[in-house]
Amino acid sequence: MDFESIYRQKVQTVNHALEQLLKEYQDCPPILHKAMKYSLMAGGKRLRPVLFLEAYELTRRSQHKEPETAVVQPMACAVEMIHTYSLIHDDLPAMDNDDYRRGKPTNHKVFGEAMAILAGDGLLNLAGEVMLDHMPKDKTKTPGYLKAMSVLAHSAGISGMIGGQVADMQSENPDCDRTDHTLLDYIHTHKTEALITGSLKAGVLAADGDAFMANTVVSYGKAYGMAFQITDDILDVTGDPAILGKLPGSDEKRGKLTYPARFGLEPSRKMAKQYVDQAVSTMNGLGSEGEFLRQLALSVWNRNQ
Amino acid sequence: MDFESIYRQKVQTVNHALEQLLKEYQDCPPILHKAMKYSLMAGGKRLRPVLFLEAYELTRRSQHKEPETAVVQPMACAVEMIHTYSLIHDDLPAMDNDDYRRGKPTNHKVFGEAMAILAGDGLLNLAGEVMLDHMPKDKTKTPGYLKAMSVLAHSAGISGMIGGQVADMQSENPDCDRTDHTLLDYIHTHKTEALITGSLKAGVLAADGDAFMANTVVSYGKAYGMAFQITDDILDVTGDPAILGKLPGSDEKRGKLTYPARFGLEPSRKMAKQYVDQAVSTMNGLGSEGEFLRQLALSVWNRNQ
Repeated sequence: MDFESIYRQKVQTVNHALEQLLKEYQDCPPILHKAMKYSLMAGGKRLRPVLFLEAYELTRRSQHKEPETAVVQPMACAVEMIHTYSLIHDDLPAMDNDDYRRGKPTNHKVFGEAMAILAGDGLLNLAGEVMLDHMPKDKTKTPGYLKAMSVLAHSAGISGMIGGQVADMQSENPDCDRTDHTLLDYIHTHKTEALITGSLKAGVLAADGDAFMANTVVSYGKAYGMAFQITDDILDVTGDPAILGKLPGSDEKRGKLTYPARFGLEPSRKMAKQYVDQAVSTMNGLGSEGEFLRQLALSVWNRNQ
Repeated sequence: MDFESIYRQKVQTVNHALEQLLKEYQDCPPILHKAMKYSLMAGGKRLRPVLFLEAYELTRRSQHKEPETAVVQPMACAVEMIHTYSLIHDDLPAMDNDDYRRGKPTNHKVFGEAMAILAGDGLLNLAGEVMLDHMPKDKTKTPGYLKAMSVLAHSAGISGMIGGQVADMQSENPDCDRTDHTLLDYIHTHKTEALITGSLKAGVLAADGDAFMANTVVSYGKAYGMAFQITDDILDVTGDPAILGKLPGSDEKRGKLTYPARFGLEPSRKMAKQYVDQAVSTMNGLGSEGEFLRQLALSVWNRNQ
């Protein structure tokens, strides 16, 4: 399996679908559209929509059905809109106060704070609009589709990603207990892992998959999400700004509670490796069908951005 | 008809349902829950959920069916969550920079800017979760319910409320053409009227109402929304801060494009009156069933907050 080229293909699918959707939703002040497009098309890894599509496709194949990817592409795009809005808001001066993202000035640096807040709000709201406007025409698919929407909404919400972001902000407080493993775990399992796992589970549900498949991808997502976030923390210490697309060291500057801050670099690397191994082993039950996600987990090692 | 007491009853219904939902959704950092609750339960007029419930109930009655209000209460609450999130974000320093709202310090004044941004995000996202989690058990109601969700999402989004807020921010620009009636109309029809009209139409759709009913409440909403927003602008010039719950004069200070700024106070009052009359007349086709909305339109005159 040529993992790299399959990943690239999926990214192209997502990018193309996003371009199409941006054309479809232009009934708004042009500056708002520009601000949303700026961040949405800034060339991210498209990790979450790729995970969503992969989970959807492998579930369909396990049912001996052709993946009808076009049906769920808008939902994949909605996932990326949710992720992008969260980045725009996280970068705001009142939050992480980051100047660069994906190698470009952050949204508020280009469009101002007010517009960045509204562009973020716009993208979150648009994710909902897109999913509601692109319900499957085949009504037998509606229940699975709605379950997928619900899982995405929860994973992005106060009990998921937003909750994790709040905990992340709280960890900057100098009075925060730096040895509190529970808080660190809460941050990681919510800030990043929730939407990663949610995307995978939503893919299974959109394909009307069974509990075995849903549990398998959730186990994968939990392990992979941890590996991904710990690596993210490590890259913020060791990363090359030219490749990273943002300045490293911002976590330390903000006094954030991260794995390297709590355990040191080497122990963090070991833990990331354990999570990668765990993610790979969750794919055992899927045989060759699990190859893409297996490779994806291993690719965390090659992450430099 | 005792309009006041019926309105008060509806507000109580909404407040009670909101309290219940806040108890249901507690799986998040306590400070985030507190920040969301602070603004959500700050004692607003509950205008949008009341409009939603009224449109739902009158549509059911027109079909000679008992209103099953409990089924749509969560959706009414979602509307209020959307409205409240928009207020929290609008009040932020980067936006309108308001210190008071509904007689209390604004969210960011109490919880800080980062938490206010996240509490707003949380409420918008929660609106979606609540609607998805409380789908009608009777599956024949699903299509109408989903149409209602879609209308709400669009009216709150970039082609509705968020678009209007962007235009409102743009109108602060000193280079902005102060005589541009199109921009002023865009602001009013989107910033306020979109969600008001959306709430009414969603109420009709959730009850599976026909096109006549949908068109009637939309016509009402357009006229009432304009009357409401012009009065809002007027109150920002003439209002009593003790009753208004916020300091008047902020529009002028920010150089916002409002009806009083564009046409003067008296002409604005006249225009508001014309819109009230128009709203009242849209109810002609509904006979006595339109009495509540008729009275509501007339009550714009007595608005002091």
